[in-house]
Amino acid sequence: MNFIRKIVKPHSKEDEVFYYELKQLLSFSPKKINYYKKAFTHKSLKLVDEKGTPVNYERLEFLGDAMLGSIIASYLYKKVPTGTEGYLTQMRSKIVSREHLNELGRDLNLLKFVKRNSADKNIGDNIYGNVFEALIGAIYLDKGYNYAKKFVYEKVIVPYVDIAKLEGKVTSYKGLIIEWCQKQKKDYLFDTYEDSGNENIKHFSVRISIDGEFVAKGRATSKKKAEEQAAKRVFFTLQDQIKSS
Amino acid sequence: MNFIRKIVKPHSKEDEVFYYELKQLLSFSPKKINYYKKAFTHKSLKLVDEKGTPVNYERLEFLGDAMLGSIIASYLYKKVPTGTEGYLTQMRSKIVSREHLNELGRDLNLLKFVKRNSADKNIGDNIYGNVFEALIGAIYLDKGYNYAKKFVYEKVIVPYVDIAKLEGKVTSYKGLIIEWCQKQKKDYLFDTYEDSGNENIKHFSVRISIDGEFVAKGRATSKKKAEEQAAKRVFFTLQDQIKSS
Repeated sequence: MNFIRKIVKPHSKEDEVFYYELKQLLSFSPKKINYYKKAFTHKSLKLVDEKGTPVNYERLEFLGDAMLGSIIASYLYKKVPTGTEGYLTQMRSKIVSREHLNELGRDLNLLKFVKRNSADKNIGDNIYGNVFEALIGAIYLDKGYNYAKKFVYEKVIVPYVDIAKLEGKVTSYKGLIIEWCQKQKKDYLFDTYEDSGNENIKHFSVRISIDGEFVAKGRATSKKKAEEQAAKRVFFTLQDQIKSS
Repeated sequence: MNFIRKIVKPHSKEDEVFYYELKQLLSFSPKKINYYKKAFTHKSLKLVDEKGTPVNYERLEFLGDAMLGSIIASYLYKKVPTGTEGYLTQMRSKIVSREHLNELGRDLNLLKFVKRNSADKNIGDNIYGNVFEALIGAIYLDKGYNYAKKFVYEKVIVPYVDIAKLEGKVTSYKGLIIEWCQKQKKDYLFDTYEDSGNENIKHFSVRISIDGEFVAKGRATSKKKAEEQAAKRVFFTLQDQIKSS
């Protein structure tokens, strides 16, 4: 076992750092690191292989987009057994929207892995979502469909996909919690503070207390998102009380 | 083993016929037959489940469409390592076009499985492609991604996907073979005849001989398709000679 692990381990110092950071991001051990290197290679580097074919993440992005689409389709099919084809199509579009994927790529801090020509200022906002898709393509090629599916569940579906919100039934968990507290005459406190830790992107943390008692916390790249995340957790913690009120 | 097989075997006579015909179509043993029944249920029957949700193939079609898209994406990614993202996207669109999928559904004779209200005359041509997609969705739910992939490879990619033709490099194998024979001063014969066998859809067979010697045959639902299929086989049989000429 140790012998096998040694073989797949990276060689250079730079590779070693990449390998360990990648492993942390993926929550599993990658096998063929070259797929992931390609997933983080921007076309501005103008790399080509021995046959003159451009080496960058765009082909992997095509592959990852298709994999993501099928994984989300399967999730929605099972999650919403009463949803019609039209409903499922619409929900999927919302989940895989460029805006949503960019948010994800930003939250996962994927840009720190990207190799690009720094003289090229025009990388665009979509690089986050594009790299996120390319990463899914790389996982599929490296470890197969089930790993890609697991990654999407852990990194997209569990933290981000909220059917009620996507359906427009809940537009803001913060609003919902505040409204409920006011009706129930409960004190509430959203304690929000900057909490970037060691990361180079600004982060915020929120702690929500109700009647002086801590209920849930959240952390994200914007104050609003952190508050929504924490409020959503409060909602799921107290949902029996909230729904019966 | 026998014990387990007995459990999954169908109960009624009708189920038994369905099971064996389905097994022949799939080239593997289905486990949960209800998925396939749903894949072949047209909405004109107006079936609903105990919760009032319509039971027909439309949700499975949504799922199968997504699975097919990802399987074709993965095939093209590996098959054409020099193809750009734009090229891959375009090729995939051609492969999964409604026209192409309808052709497939028709060739697999899927309509014989479909349960529908016969008073509803308006089923439309797309039913072939739609049912084909729904079937892929059912395979995915019943046996997982790799079975769906294997089915698509065997039933779509091997018999139908021809990159050279999709790229427009070869528009007709029949034309290509005839042209080559004329240049090489060879006699050629396309022997085409109706050959429906026991099937209720008209079929044609073609036998191609060159210089009096049989080379390849084809069989399909139209004369033109059967000829193309046979000519393509001639091309691959004689490609060394044809390419060096």
